[in-house]
Amino acid sequence: MSELDPTLADLPLVDHHCHGLVRRDLDRAEFEAMLTEAEGPGPLGGSLLDSQIGFAVRRWCAPVLDLPAHAPAEEYLARRAELGADEVNRRLLAATGTQTFLVDTGYLPEPITSPAELAALTGGRAREVVRLEALAEEVLAGGVAAGDFAEAFRSRLADRSADAAGVKSVAAYRVGLALEGARPTDAEVTAAADRLLRRGGKPRIADPVLHRFLVWSGIDRQLPVQFHVGYGDADVDLHRCDPLLLTDLLRATEPAGVPVMLLHNYPFHRNAGFLAQVFGHVFVDVGLATHNLGHRSDALLRELLELAPFGKVLFSSDAFGLAELYLLGTVLFRRGLGRYLAEGVAEDAWTAADAARVAALIGAGNAERAYRLGS
Amino acid sequence: MSELDPTLADLPLVDHHCHGLVRRDLDRAEFEAMLTEAEGPGPLGGSLLDSQIGFAVRRWCAPVLDLPAHAPAEEYLARRAELGADEVNRRLLAATGTQTFLVDTGYLPEPITSPAELAALTGGRAREVVRLEALAEEVLAGGVAAGDFAEAFRSRLADRSADAAGVKSVAAYRVGLALEGARPTDAEVTAAADRLLRRGGKPRIADPVLHRFLVWSGIDRQLPVQFHVGYGDADVDLHRCDPLLLTDLLRATEPAGVPVMLLHNYPFHRNAGFLAQVFGHVFVDVGLATHNLGHRSDALLRELLELAPFGKVLFSSDAFGLAELYLLGTVLFRRGLGRYLAEGVAEDAWTAADAARVAALIGAGNAERAYRLGS
Amino acid sequence: MSELDPTLADLPLVDHHCHGLVRRDLDRAEFEAMLTEAEGPGPLGGSLLDSQIGFAVRRWCAPVLDLPAHAPAEEYLARRAELGADEVNRRLLAATGTQTFLVDTGYLPEPITSPAELAALTGGRAREVVRLEALAEEVLAGGVAAGDFAEAFRSRLADRSADAAGVKSVAAYRVGLALEGARPTDAEVTAAADRLLRRGGKPRIADPVLHRFLVWSGIDRQLPVQFHVGYGDADVDLHRCDPLLLTDLLRATEPAGVPVMLLHNYPFHRNAGFLAQVFGHVFVDVGLATHNLGHRSDALLRELLELAPFGKVLFSSDAFGLAELYLLGTVLFRRGLGRYLAEGVAEDAWTAADAARVAALIGAGNAERAYRLGS
Repeated sequence: MSELDPTLADLPLVDHHCHGLVRRDLDRAEFEAMLTEAEGPGPLGGSLLDSQIGFAVRRWCAPVLDLPAHAPAEEYLARRAELGADEVNRRLLAATGTQTFLVDTGYLPEPITSPAELAALTGGRAREVVRLEALAEEVLAGGVAAGDFAEAFRSRLADRSADAAGVKSVAAYRVGLALEGARPTDAEVTAAADRLLRRGGKPRIADPVLHRFLVWSGIDRQLPVQFHVGYGDADVDLHRCDPLLLTDLLRATEPAGVPVMLLHNYPFHRNAGFLAQVFGHVFVDVGLATHNLGHRSDALLRELLELAPFGKVLFSSDAFGLAELYLLGTVLFRRGLGRYLAEGVAEDAWTAADAARVAALIGAGNAERAYRLGS
Repeated sequence: MSELDPTLADLPLVDHHCHGLVRRDLDRAEFEAMLTEAEGPGPLGGSLLDSQIGFAVRRWCAPVLDLPAHAPAEEYLARRAELGADEVNRRLLAATGTQTFLVDTGYLPEPITSPAELAALTGGRAREVVRLEALAEEVLAGGVAAGDFAEAFRSRLADRSADAAGVKSVAAYRVGLALEGARPTDAEVTAAADRLLRRGGKPRIADPVLHRFLVWSGIDRQLPVQFHVGYGDADVDLHRCDPLLLTDLLRATEPAGVPVMLLHNYPFHRNAGFLAQVFGHVFVDVGLATHNLGHRSDALLRELLELAPFGKVLFSSDAFGLAELYLLGTVLFRRGLGRYLAEGVAEDAWTAADAARVAALIGAGNAERAYRLGS
Repeated sequence: MSELDPTLADLPLVDHHCHGLVRRDLDRAEFEAMLTEAEGPGPLGGSLLDSQIGFAVRRWCAPVLDLPAHAPAEEYLARRAELGADEVNRRLLAATGTQTFLVDTGYLPEPITSPAELAALTGGRAREVVRLEALAEEVLAGGVAAGDFAEAFRSRLADRSADAAGVKSVAAYRVGLALEGARPTDAEVTAAADRLLRRGGKPRIADPVLHRFLVWSGIDRQLPVQFHVGYGDADVDLHRCDPLLLTDLLRATEPAGVPVMLLHNYPFHRNAGFLAQVFGHVFVDVGLATHNLGHRSDALLRELLELAPFGKVLFSSDAFGLAELYLLGTVLFRRGLGRYLAEGVAEDAWTAADAARVAALIGAGNAERAYRLGS
């Protein structure tokens, strides 16, 4: 491929971080609630469809449901209901052109598709990403003694990750990202598990010692570690989720040579780009923000691709639940990356052949290398 | 309105946060001192008119004073002196096209126009925004006992806010925005008032307990609460004024259903946009920064309008003193919003009819709804 | 000069912050290691030449070595080896058009050119910038008693700075920028020096008291003080290097009337622009980031030139070692500033004559005034 197609319509994609699809039909309030990181539309602010992502749904998804681009929201939702969730999911997923999905299976607020079911919708393949905290909470809920937790978790992780592509930490949501780098001792882990178990109730990990233990357990198994970073819902304390707060942990883990993936990153994506440049094992993406920013997602990619080396940038949708999010994640990524690269060609910053090579790296090649997907 | 005028020249505007005008004539040093957030020009840095806002004055205000666009600063100031402050104020305010002013009446470093006098210059109307700290300091200066302060303040606020559109907190300037969410008890308020009164002298509130008490008092009266956020003068510790620091307070106040308005926000406007998406009661603007950024204010609006739902974005000038700031605030807002929306039409992100509808929301409709201005 | 050349090809430049050149030949790994702030290429991320700066080398430097623009990296490195380091240095430096270099002489990981040697390559002149911590560590290593350190340092600084243009602090790398403003007493300095000397070994300053003492010593001698801010290598805790953390020190030092220069600043350059507006003695640049951002450096300059008054913005390359960095620093600065100013003319924000005047200020005039280079 030596010429650059600025829409990158046929670019092979590895979606290195997403979730499953909801299969039931949704009413308007449910649709709006799943569209953005808001809990749903409220009485003060009007419809969430009056937003970048709402206009993007009408622009890009309506034609896939046989409506004209920009069909009004009411018509879109009526047509969606008419086709039914299965047909909508089938059409929108097929339009993504995603070949490989790495699926975080640790977030299940309601029944969603399995990785295999998701991949079947595009004729692609799927690999699992194991959510560390969910697995640890399973172990703790199973009645382990505090002193046995570390070993029991390592053993459970070995089982669960045998075919997994990587693991994921949601420390950001629980305690923020200002984690020390040092690997905790088993004694420290025991003490932390003891504190947690003494509280009783359903175990919920929110202790820096335990988050660090989980991350190091993944690294010890040579599993790439994904971190939620930055943008999320109202449960996140966003000022504690700047990726720069991970600096100490990144310094400590770099010698292990295991990739660390910083997910989402908005509005700290330039900070993430810095980390990708100076730490050899750090990879970055702008999933979730890409579809939420709609028409402005091209600016986001331009800012990420300032310091981040082009061999360290990945694609993800971070789509959950709504089929629209998988399509918008891919179509806006293809459009944004294509525009960025085509502008560089037009301004003589690089050649079309270089641009095509970089597109292939960012779309799939970097993820294949970092996650060893070919092996 | 179904076609989009990219200059939005006739868009009705509610300026939901501004101050009064200075009526006296100003010499060059005084003019420069009021132009930006600097104290004034200094010996090291040259004229403050050599800046984005300075060039914007010469571009947009000079023609209103019968000079060619880009007239040199000296000619502009000479013509300003020749016409006199009253005529300059009359001309520049009339050119804003602002229909409604919500006026913060709590900052009075020198005599300025009343809300009614300001509105008369455009043939519009005005409503007051009561500055919480100024009102509380009045109450404290009046000789109240610490134990009576909470009740005395609530009573004074009830009186003063009978016709007010909302209240405003300047906690950012006093202690920063890292405020806990919980409503302080009257005992905590008494203790804080006691500490303050024991210090003697003119009372100046700079205590997180008291700022929280004032904010909750506004919310209890169903009054929209404005917060100074981000950009201000050299008195502000800008790193303590990131709107994300308000997260805890926003979580605590959301159930009350009273709007919270984050003002200015630069350079944290993307963070503010996030809060506007995930909290149903949060509204945002980029006043003050809009005129200070001059020709670059369009970039600012583009970045705000990434995550912020279009039903949660407001217009303000935050103009104080100089008539030029009222005009630049409006003309640069009209231009920036118009360009953003017109580019979206040109790139097929939305239709011209949608763009016109969104312009009407952001220019006036959202403020009318949030402040119940029609009622 | 009344018309604007958008390439600013002949704009006189003062590079107010750079280092010396490495004169030996470099293999590919060494070249990549000096190209960015990464330690070097690693097994996970591919070549660092696949990045904005790598493409900029191929675009802008290849023709100076008689290759076509965009020559492949292998050909570029082969041609570089063929010409030899001296010829490469001569050609690339001559192409910068830099008249004056202010050279930080305190970073010497390997032998590099002296200021005079560097300036000879362009036919320009050079002045020294004395690195405060390096000088203080020399004094401490020389066997001074803790109680004599303050006076010994002041005396050494007086000697070393007799012909210097200014001094530089690397507090950012050692303790971060959250420094109190107050000038430490000699007793505090003695106690801090005592703590450091008791630790033994090669003295390394990393104590807020000592960094503040060094900065105040420079100010007392009326020497402009440069601060490393923001972007650097993996040793920097970037979240401790936001220029806003200097607010207290900037407030305390402003009355002295001595310029303070905030270097690099990325990704906090908007924060730096704010400080340049509100503090009369603060100057800012975006060196280091300019060449690392390659084709995107124009966006960086646009964002810096939002709040920063045009009389407070400086040019620097922050180049170290590789001749390519001096050329990219200048060519991308000329291109970015030229585009910014030409767009303003095209959009009628200012006139071509104003644009040319501003270019001359930012390229050289501001530095000449702030550092009194003419005197």
